[in-house]
Amino acid sequence: MWTYQAPVADMLHVMTRVLGAPDRWSEIPAFDGLDADTAREVVQQAARFAGEVLAPINANGDLVGCTWTANGVTTPPGFPEAYRAFVDGGWPALACAPDAGGQGLPQLLNAALFEMLAAANHAWTMYPGLLHGAYEVIHAHGTDALKERYLAKVTSGDWLGTMCMTEPQAGSDLGQVRTRADLVDGAVAANGAPVAITGGKIFISGGEQDLTDNIVHLVLCRLAGAPGGTKGLSLALVPRILPDGRRNAVFCDGIEKKMGIKGSATCQMRFDGAEGWLIGEPDRGLAAMFLMMNAARLHVGLQGLGHLEAATQNAWRYAGERLQMRAAAKPQGAAADPAGADPIAWHPAMRRTLLGLQARTDAVRVLAYWTALLLDEHEQHPDPTRRATAGGHVALLTPVAKALFTDLGHRSADEALQIWGGYGYVHEYGIEQTVRDSRIAMIYEGTNEIQAVDLVQRKLLDDGGARAQALLAELECEVLLCLAQGSLQPFGVALSGQLSAWRQAQQALLDGCSADPEYPLRVADDMLQGIGHVLMCWAWARIARCSVAPLAGGRTAAQWQAAARYGIEWLLPQAQVHWARVARRTAALPFV
Amino acid sequence: MWTYQAPVADMLHVMTRVLGAPDRWSEIPAFDGLDADTAREVVQQAARFAGEVLAPINANGDLVGCTWTANGVTTPPGFPEAYRAFVDGGWPALACAPDAGGQGLPQLLNAALFEMLAAANHAWTMYPGLLHGAYEVIHAHGTDALKERYLAKVTSGDWLGTMCMTEPQAGSDLGQVRTRADLVDGAVAANGAPVAITGGKIFISGGEQDLTDNIVHLVLCRLAGAPGGTKGLSLALVPRILPDGRRNAVFCDGIEKKMGIKGSATCQMRFDGAEGWLIGEPDRGLAAMFLMMNAARLHVGLQGLGHLEAATQNAWRYAGERLQMRAAAKPQGAAADPAGADPIAWHPAMRRTLLGLQARTDAVRVLAYWTALLLDEHEQHPDPTRRATAGGHVALLTPVAKALFTDLGHRSADEALQIWGGYGYVHEYGIEQTVRDSRIAMIYEGTNEIQAVDLVQRKLLDDGGARAQALLAELECEVLLCLAQGSLQPFGVALSGQLSAWRQAQQALLDGCSADPEYPLRVADDMLQGIGHVLMCWAWARIARCSVAPLAGGRTAAQWQAAARYGIEWLLPQAQVHWARVARRTAALPFV
Repeated sequence: MWTYQAPVADMLHVMTRVLGAPDRWSEIPAFDGLDADTAREVVQQAARFAGEVLAPINANGDLVGCTWTANGVTTPPGFPEAYRAFVDGGWPALACAPDAGGQGLPQLLNAALFEMLAAANHAWTMYPGLLHGAYEVIHAHGTDALKERYLAKVTSGDWLGTMCMTEPQAGSDLGQVRTRADLVDGAVAANGAPVAITGGKIFISGGEQDLTDNIVHLVLCRLAGAPGGTKGLSLALVPRILPDGRRNAVFCDGIEKKMGIKGSATCQMRFDGAEGWLIGEPDRGLAAMFLMMNAARLHVGLQGLGHLEAATQNAWRYAGERLQMRAAAKPQGAAADPAGADPIAWHPAMRRTLLGLQARTDAVRVLAYWTALLLDEHEQHPDPTRRATAGGHVALLTPVAKALFTDLGHRSADEALQIWGGYGYVHEYGIEQTVRDSRIAMIYEGTNEIQAVDLVQRKLLDDGGARAQALLAELECEVLLCLAQGSLQPFGVALSGQLSAWRQAQQALLDGCSADPEYPLRVADDMLQGIGHVLMCWAWARIARCSVAPLAGGRTAAQWQAAARYGIEWLLPQAQVHWARVARRTAALPFV
Repeated sequence: MWTYQAPVADMLHVMTRVLGAPDRWSEIPAFDGLDADTAREVVQQAARFAGEVLAPINANGDLVGCTWTANGVTTPPGFPEAYRAFVDGGWPALACAPDAGGQGLPQLLNAALFEMLAAANHAWTMYPGLLHGAYEVIHAHGTDALKERYLAKVTSGDWLGTMCMTEPQAGSDLGQVRTRADLVDGAVAANGAPVAITGGKIFISGGEQDLTDNIVHLVLCRLAGAPGGTKGLSLALVPRILPDGRRNAVFCDGIEKKMGIKGSATCQMRFDGAEGWLIGEPDRGLAAMFLMMNAARLHVGLQGLGHLEAATQNAWRYAGERLQMRAAAKPQGAAADPAGADPIAWHPAMRRTLLGLQARTDAVRVLAYWTALLLDEHEQHPDPTRRATAGGHVALLTPVAKALFTDLGHRSADEALQIWGGYGYVHEYGIEQTVRDSRIAMIYEGTNEIQAVDLVQRKLLDDGGARAQALLAELECEVLLCLAQGSLQPFGVALSGQLSAWRQAQQALLDGCSADPEYPLRVADDMLQGIGHVLMCWAWARIARCSVAPLAGGRTAAQWQAAARYGIEWLLPQAQVHWARVARRTAALPFV
């Protein structure tokens, strides 16, 4: 049966030994007093919550799903109680600023928390998933009056938030948003102005729920007379319950029947002149929302990591228990089972799947935590140069993280399912739910194709390649460190080759984009996947170098090394396909 | 919304122009009188049944699923009526021998039929899916007495059949089957001997249903005193209702809650001394079942093709209708939409997805139909040399077809889902059901990993490579034909390169397998994928060469050419990853 236990020792090993987070925290005054022990304490407690409270209600949440009536939404059994425990534990405020009632801990620890929540119960995690974003918007853009009313409640998690962006005709193309904001009470258009909101929104996660007394909707809308397209969008804060206790005119007209995350209510929302207030400057709503985009996209990437981890640990367990057929070779010293069959973990095809799962999980965790660490440095480091460099890295890494991790999370779970054979197709064994749940992360918060376009147009080409050069220089250090140690030569050589490939591809894009503006778009997905492989190669090299004496309670040095080695030997060759496609500038892509 | 209309003109184009089936049928006396017109008539009628009867009950069948009680199973609304219409139309007997009441039409037409059934409604198709196999077993192995009682009813489809193989401890490893057969009435062990069957079976598709009065179970079992492993397995025919009208002691104890094909009842079966008869020789049960394995595995491959086609045609339609954002380039002469957004089919990432879907669908259809055509030649050609050659090709092609087509069917549907964005995740749009339904085909009838092992061990290495040489020689002809025409040079060059790569990989396997017996198993999946790419390349070349003037009502020559060209330019490079992995004999695959 499906289970989830956070791999605490492995997570801490990545944070401390592979990434050296405590040393980097010590440079940031805001994290004064934070050390490896505090981090361990936080991760252990979060692991307990994820494993003991959330994981046990995951499968049933999928079976029961949410129930809609005109009066509201009922979430699956145990979901409200788990949310109460989450709030009581102080988890929502983990990475919020102390001046807003938060604990001021790093994004990195928040990332570890959300990896575990998503792994244990993705559907449930959708409810608090947007909380930090709502907090950031209110914290950064809210007038004092709005902050006074909403910030503390959102920081604590007593009230949940939503992001009301999508409309039927406005998915990837938010410029087509039609929801109307009308100024009321003679107000002029300005931050905090009272407005009446009218329109329909779809795909609103947690638009209705039974976890909190109030819901704070952040609604993308358009003031009368505002320009068309994205430059005329404003953002409004619309509470479900108004300050005077009246029910606001915002209604959930139905919920979607979805492939997965069935315990998360995906709501069709109707605003019938609902009362609200502008938050941020008029016509600058998209910018206000994009402020939190890096963190939000990384959070979706963490869902990919969570699914990868859940699939990997369940696959290893099952493959060790299930006996089928004699294997062609056995582990040294292993006794043959008297039943006449060996664990399927010994069969070559299964070993490939298992090692592939582990190698991807390890690399993605290193990259996810590294991005979170850079996000902290970008936001909080005292040295402006370090802030700027970290910010550049984060900008480039974010679309790759979102697309690569969610892609790997889903595809790896789908691959893992094969280990269970026919049982994998049966709900009871859990892996098919992981496959279904993980699929959404490739779509929302910008589809993975949109991420690739963002990467090439706004991260690789907009600055003539400067951001890419800076990141390449950083990755290059690992080549030198690996080549300096005999046993790590293969990692140094592999990474060096990948960095050259990226540089060539980068140059090809820069050279080719003006004569043929569509060229970068045709190869955007390959560029993202190619860079994703470079980054995984870097992570495997770093793991190999830094895992000589991993933390007790986690995997052994040999286990870390084996997965990293599998990564460069069996998985990395895939990068060549992507680089070759980028290099073939003239390959036809007709309209048919 | 999801729809399915069989692409009749395209299917017939592949049969007649690309593969030249009518000319090949004319060499086979059993198909006397069969021509392109008859084939068209059959395909058109089947298309009407699939599109008008089965497709409309597909989505609801998924939502409602099957209901189990101790008295039996209720299939989704419309399923029994559709099955009645299927029987009344004479479809079950299409490719059965005239002496058994069949129509004696080619496997190729039966393949086209099952492609359409699976595309329109995979879950429903599970019920008649095993019928032809049951027919073949009874036809080939049944005593006259058993044939007398069961053959006509199974040929006509009045009674359905099941294959009872899997037990909880015996999935891929059928040698562990424990179900017991006890001889009764003092019979000696021989074909047709009466037996009492005792044991439990799982994952039995259609073990109970409400479509037919009787069900004919074919049960893998073991006589008392028989050897262990697969060499001690016998096959028994066990009817649900006995000839004298009594209910036999075979019961369905429950059905599985599955990821997909929810309208298909996947039953846990209990045999409590159920009455039956041996069919085929004692201890030769697996051989009797394997007789029909090539056809059965091809049929599963056809499910992959069906899902590919369904995903492809729905994706093209939706991408043409959905308007989001301005495209960087437009089709020549296309007018910009006044709404300020272009069809997503114009965006490069979507064009890649759409062309990739079409290229795979086309190649898989060519390969599936070709395999079916070879199966007919193997079974019915008057020239024994032709029969033998065709038999060798079929043996090699079958595991590739099963694994490659189902892999592509599922993965392509999953890729297609992305085209719908958030709507893709919602049940109502249908594509997520295709993703879920298609997943099972990678597992049953031998997992795709088992197919790869079968390919390397029993098809590529067991005869020193002779079968592979024969197929390579056949494929080589296409190189010569393409190189002879200027415009087809790229296809000839690509195919020539792939054939060399296969030859090298083949040699590496032959050279390396004795020193390191596990080596072929480590690279089995890559060998299968590599050969799959060679075959797709051959299909694209053949399509390009033979689609100068395609059948009216289908796609234009330019459309066929564009997809084939996309195949060799964008998809074929993937083959290199597989060949490179096969070539690296020493890459580590540790036990961890």
